[in-house]
Amino acid sequence: MTAAFSDLKGFRALLATQPASDTGAIAAAQARNGQLTKPPAALGRLEDLAIWYAGWRGTDRPTITTPQVIVFAGNHGVAAQGVSAFPPEVTAQMVLNFEHGGAAINQLSQTFGATLDVHALSLDTPTADFTQSPAMSEGDFSAALLAGWNAVDENADVLVTGEMGIGNTTSAAALATALFGGGAEDWTGRGTGVDDAGLANKTRVVAEGVALHAGQGDGLEMLRRLGGRELAGMAGAIARARSLRIPVLLDGFICCAAAASLEKTVAGSLDHCVAGHLSAEGAHARMLEALDKKPLLSLGLRLGEASGAALSLGVLKAAVACLSGMATFAEAGVSDS
Amino acid sequence: MTAAFSDLKGFRALLATQPASDTGAIAAAQARNGQLTKPPAALGRLEDLAIWYAGWRGTDRPTITTPQVIVFAGNHGVAAQGVSAFPPEVTAQMVLNFEHGGAAINQLSQTFGATLDVHALSLDTPTADFTQSPAMSEGDFSAALLAGWNAVDENADVLVTGEMGIGNTTSAAALATALFGGGAEDWTGRGTGVDDAGLANKTRVVAEGVALHAGQGDGLEMLRRLGGRELAGMAGAIARARSLRIPVLLDGFICCAAAASLEKTVAGSLDHCVAGHLSAEGAHARMLEALDKKPLLSLGLRLGEASGAALSLGVLKAAVACLSGMATFAEAGVSDS
Repeated sequence: MTAAFSDLKGFRALLATQPASDTGAIAAAQARNGQLTKPPAALGRLEDLAIWYAGWRGTDRPTITTPQVIVFAGNHGVAAQGVSAFPPEVTAQMVLNFEHGGAAINQLSQTFGATLDVHALSLDTPTADFTQSPAMSEGDFSAALLAGWNAVDENADVLVTGEMGIGNTTSAAALATALFGGGAEDWTGRGTGVDDAGLANKTRVVAEGVALHAGQGDGLEMLRRLGGRELAGMAGAIARARSLRIPVLLDGFICCAAAASLEKTVAGSLDHCVAGHLSAEGAHARMLEALDKKPLLSLGLRLGEASGAALSLGVLKAAVACLSGMATFAEAGVSDS
Repeated sequence: MTAAFSDLKGFRALLATQPASDTGAIAAAQARNGQLTKPPAALGRLEDLAIWYAGWRGTDRPTITTPQVIVFAGNHGVAAQGVSAFPPEVTAQMVLNFEHGGAAINQLSQTFGATLDVHALSLDTPTADFTQSPAMSEGDFSAALLAGWNAVDENADVLVTGEMGIGNTTSAAALATALFGGGAEDWTGRGTGVDDAGLANKTRVVAEGVALHAGQGDGLEMLRRLGGRELAGMAGAIARARSLRIPVLLDGFICCAAAASLEKTVAGSLDHCVAGHLSAEGAHARMLEALDKKPLLSLGLRLGEASGAALSLGVLKAAVACLSGMATFAEAGVSDS
């Protein structure tokens, strides 16, 4: 297989020429929705969600039969600075747990009929500590983007991306600060559960990284300097889904930080994405607001590994089933007023 | 089959002697939850939900394989006062639509693997106009409660109840006002979509009913006087689910008004119930607060017919799958700190 891109320049060129939603399919889906056997707007947000989905799939009666969940894993040099409540070896241990079916995302994927693919990205070679240098070289970064791009199943009809990587809320907080501005304290949270001293240390690390790298380039360049391989993998997969017109459900803080680097590089890059949930990681609400994304669910999850977005698959499947499967007033012989 | 009860006195006696949750199963589920491969509390509300479910099912590793959705339909004498945007014949038309698979609840039940049962309760004989007399005689009311009681499948592992009945947000608003106090305007909303003049008329009708009946008895008596057969059916089914230790997902404003009549008769009657969603019908938030129930979803639905609660089935199934199916730190060989 020829690689879709061989360097960052190639990826940037693809980002700039992504397809748009199908306005004809949107109009047809809106018309159909208005004839279904329910009072106007009585399905609330499910109606908007189904119409949005129809636009990306190019049909007013879409179906969801092959959801794909992809979890990318990576290790972070910055973890050596004691920013996590868990040791770095947990990344690899959790990858095995995913492969053996023992993690939350295994149960969630199965509940909603999704395929789960796990991609461990060079776990034995952590990224560089971003307080000292860029996390990734251009070559490493481009390879991680490509791994994400190639991970997407062309036959998937919805994509959920998530991550595992000890230290990666620190990376995401630094990336968010560089992308959106504000102080490190605005974007740094407790992750898997650091205490007050841990939070202070983490905030200091984020501030150091931001001081070294912010303003040195666009969203993708910030992702290279402050992100990690699993964040780059998610960004690559989200871009590939767009090229295939596969709608995406975004997971929590780390996933959205990776996604935001695309949006900050080419505005509109996340139009095919919906926020699956609002995480309990404090700065996620701020990030969703900055991205103008309203979450489908808000149940206090803060696990990562695609869990919140996978949970929202049920909502999306239900919305699409109603649009495509319900009878119209005329078909059912129901009086419409 | 001998009827579980032959009159209201019999139903009240059953309500007063319902089973409690299994504290041993709760403790075992809490212990298991604490050992699963995730940071503490990282699954947020899913954890509390699964533990609650485990308590009612009496096991720390429960499963959900046979959800049951029941929709009760009834007609209301008060509909003649022009309180709805739709004519009364729509109730029977929608029952046919349910039976032919054309409604939203058909699609939602199918999406989440639930059986859907529809019970049309004497549609040709609307209840009496509650501004003139009690909506139901004691015999009619008891029969509707029994229809609900008998509708529950003993093998169901979760129950969702909902309703269809032109005029029934008016009935529910009157019931809520009588049960919780406040003015008719606090509990009266637009239902399927009445305009400002319609809302004023509806509020007047509610106030008249409340003036005639409030204070004339307990929660069940208010349900008899101001409710309808489908509300009584839901109340009977919710009580039967409790007797079988089947957890219940409550739907929107009308379902919760019916359920509240049980709680106001015997406190604790809804301990086996969770609010599936927050409806866009304005007074639902007020009612959930009064019942101390926090909704799982808030997606702007206001359709009734069990739709919002059915949508929350996905969340409950996912929560239970995580508790019962995830590996522990020891099983997976993952470091827990």
